[in-house]
Amino acid sequence: MRIPELFRKLARGPQIITLKDAGMIAAFTGLTSGDMVVDAGAGSGFLSIFLANQVKPEGKVFSYELREDFSKIAARNVKKAGFEKYVEVKNRDIFKGIDEKDVDVITLDMPEPWHAIDHVCSALKKGGYLVSYLPTVEQMRKFVLLCIEKGLKHEQSIECIVREMAVKETGTRPETKGLMHTAYLSFFRK
Amino acid sequence: MRIPELFRKLARGPQIITLKDAGMIAAFTGLTSGDMVVDAGAGSGFLSIFLANQVKPEGKVFSYELREDFSKIAARNVKKAGFEKYVEVKNRDIFKGIDEKDVDVITLDMPEPWHAIDHVCSALKKGGYLVSYLPTVEQMRKFVLLCIEKGLKHEQSIECIVREMAVKETGTRPETKGLMHTAYLSFFRK
Amino acid sequence: MRIPELFRKLARGPQIITLKDAGMIAAFTGLTSGDMVVDAGAGSGFLSIFLANQVKPEGKVFSYELREDFSKIAARNVKKAGFEKYVEVKNRDIFKGIDEKDVDVITLDMPEPWHAIDHVCSALKKGGYLVSYLPTVEQMRKFVLLCIEKGLKHEQSIECIVREMAVKETGTRPETKGLMHTAYLSFFRK
Amino acid sequence: MRIPELFRKLARGPQIITLKDAGMIAAFTGLTSGDMVVDAGAGSGFLSIFLANQVKPEGKVFSYELREDFSKIAARNVKKAGFEKYVEVKNRDIFKGIDEKDVDVITLDMPEPWHAIDHVCSALKKGGYLVSYLPTVEQMRKFVLLCIEKGLKHEQSIECIVREMAVKETGTRPETKGLMHTAYLSFFRK
Repeated sequence: MRIPELFRKLARGPQIITLKDAGMIAAFTGLTSGDMVVDAGAGSGFLSIFLANQVKPEGKVFSYELREDFSKIAARNVKKAGFEKYVEVKNRDIFKGIDEKDVDVITLDMPEPWHAIDHVCSALKKGGYLVSYLPTVEQMRKFVLLCIEKGLKHEQSIECIVREMAVKETGTRPETKGLMHTAYLSFFRK
Repeated sequence: MRIPELFRKLARGPQIITLKDAGMIAAFTGLTSGDMVVDAGAGSGFLSIFLANQVKPEGKVFSYELREDFSKIAARNVKKAGFEKYVEVKNRDIFKGIDEKDVDVITLDMPEPWHAIDHVCSALKKGGYLVSYLPTVEQMRKFVLLCIEKGLKHEQSIECIVREMAVKETGTRPETKGLMHTAYLSFFRK
Repeated sequence: MRIPELFRKLARGPQIITLKDAGMIAAFTGLTSGDMVVDAGAGSGFLSIFLANQVKPEGKVFSYELREDFSKIAARNVKKAGFEKYVEVKNRDIFKGIDEKDVDVITLDMPEPWHAIDHVCSALKKGGYLVSYLPTVEQMRKFVLLCIEKGLKHEQSIECIVREMAVKETGTRPETKGLMHTAYLSFFRK
Repeated sequence: MRIPELFRKLARGPQIITLKDAGMIAAFTGLTSGDMVVDAGAGSGFLSIFLANQVKPEGKVFSYELREDFSKIAARNVKKAGFEKYVEVKNRDIFKGIDEKDVDVITLDMPEPWHAIDHVCSALKKGGYLVSYLPTVEQMRKFVLLCIEKGLKHEQSIECIVREMAVKETGTRPETKGLMHTAYLSFFRK
């Protein structure tokens, strides 16, 4: 089963990342097989599975989730997806530390990523990417300024808007309603 | 060297695909290691390299390019990127046939993809994805209607707009100018 | 009562134009007091009332509507808005002719505006504006090419996207969902 | 000469407002003949002329501008446009007071509109509109929260994105590049 199908079929607990945003992360970090990735918080595990699908078979995703209930949903989804070999869900607080070293890509989808910044800076490999996923401008700004202060290179902060086109007998047009905003994605490099 | 850097450093002949659109292709087809991909036309080879970066080490991209000059630029870029093992550039007309069978993903970035449709339908694996990248609404519509007629499932046609955010001392705001449109991406499934 | 309130309170029959699109029409035609306007089809009369609000007290809007039921809704809304002096609703087929001469601005919000083009060209004052409001790309294109052929100057065709910003205690962000598309507005000048 | 032409022909000093944003102001405040408007800062006077074009012949725009050089450019543009009767340019600091009472619409296009808030609240008629035009999210947020605190009703804060469509022989598509952001418009009501 390919990722878009998996995303439609897995159980949802907390809000999941959209494919468009996951695709931006893959493209703007140049994600590839063999990458070691740390993803926090795991939520339902969708982003971890997406990332694992890109780093397998040689890479691995370590998926941190503080809440026990979410980490169970995530682990269950990882299993259903057949990705146990490539995703390790850890019911751990990333603010207290990151076990992995020389990490290629770290993704932070949590309200207060600033508490993780020192651990992130240590765990990240030179040249590695940090990506934050933050809904509000204030969160994004705060994190960008902190990361710059910590010596990371701010590559860019973006929002990605996907407009679906309706191709009907009567003509072609963008769909009337749609998703206007999910989150700002910021990309940093060590 | 990671993909975003590579994209900045490789030689450009014909117009290249943007990272945002390449990311959409990766995400919406669930591209993964081991996938066999056919990409046409190769142009400067950027999309082929991007796709190879996602399907390596077990997968491969076969990159068709009719024009000899472009196929040389593409081959040179593939070599510079160190991707010779994962991308095979073919100076061939995809309208005359596709050598590969059971292809997972076929991407068509050319003005008249309809001439390739029968070969595409044969080459594509059941469940495999076809993606077209077309700048105008008319091209996109024509191709969507043809693909539906040929029995492919039209998953969606989208445009992806990335807005860069400026985080400055004076405040945060979207950048004044930017890329409003590159192309419509259509996704089909066999 | 000001226009935004009126728009919330009047009876709705057929789909009404949004304030954003009405504002684009006002701005891009430079609508002003004293202008004589022809608006067809009237629908619920909202656009006519909006336009009248801009051309009063010296100007007037002549509002054509083929369907008797709609023209009654429109007339009732005009009355409720207190605009009888500035809007005359005509239960007439604009494809059969336009009574007015030297019209400053003509707005066409109907599926097949091409049938009205000859009457429009005659009724429009030199320097006057024609505006079409068409949901699909194909309608828009067909009408643009016809108007150019008829000697009108195509000023521009646009879509106007308004993104609402949520200013909350927790932060500031664009609203999650919204109106992605209403119609393409094309502006022509005689 | 109609407004879109005037905008192309008048002398530019400070950056001028776009027609799209001026149109949003007209539409979302229901601007109409007879309205009394206060506009600050005048800049090159474009927005004042635009507004005057909508409130004439019975209304008037009072245009405050602190800088003497700008107020001269504005006055000259008003004269060239033939709007002396409808726009009065005042070389005055709006932070020190507003002479007018029972104002229908006040527009603030300046970096720190918060200094004008008390004068605005006094000058505005009950039911009247205040509109701010602010480039950054932080300015917009600060002003929105202050206005709410001062008892004004926050109608909405928006950004308006206009995408131009290219209608060419080869097909129809949005223009490649364009204006991604000008400013956030916030609308308040007393």
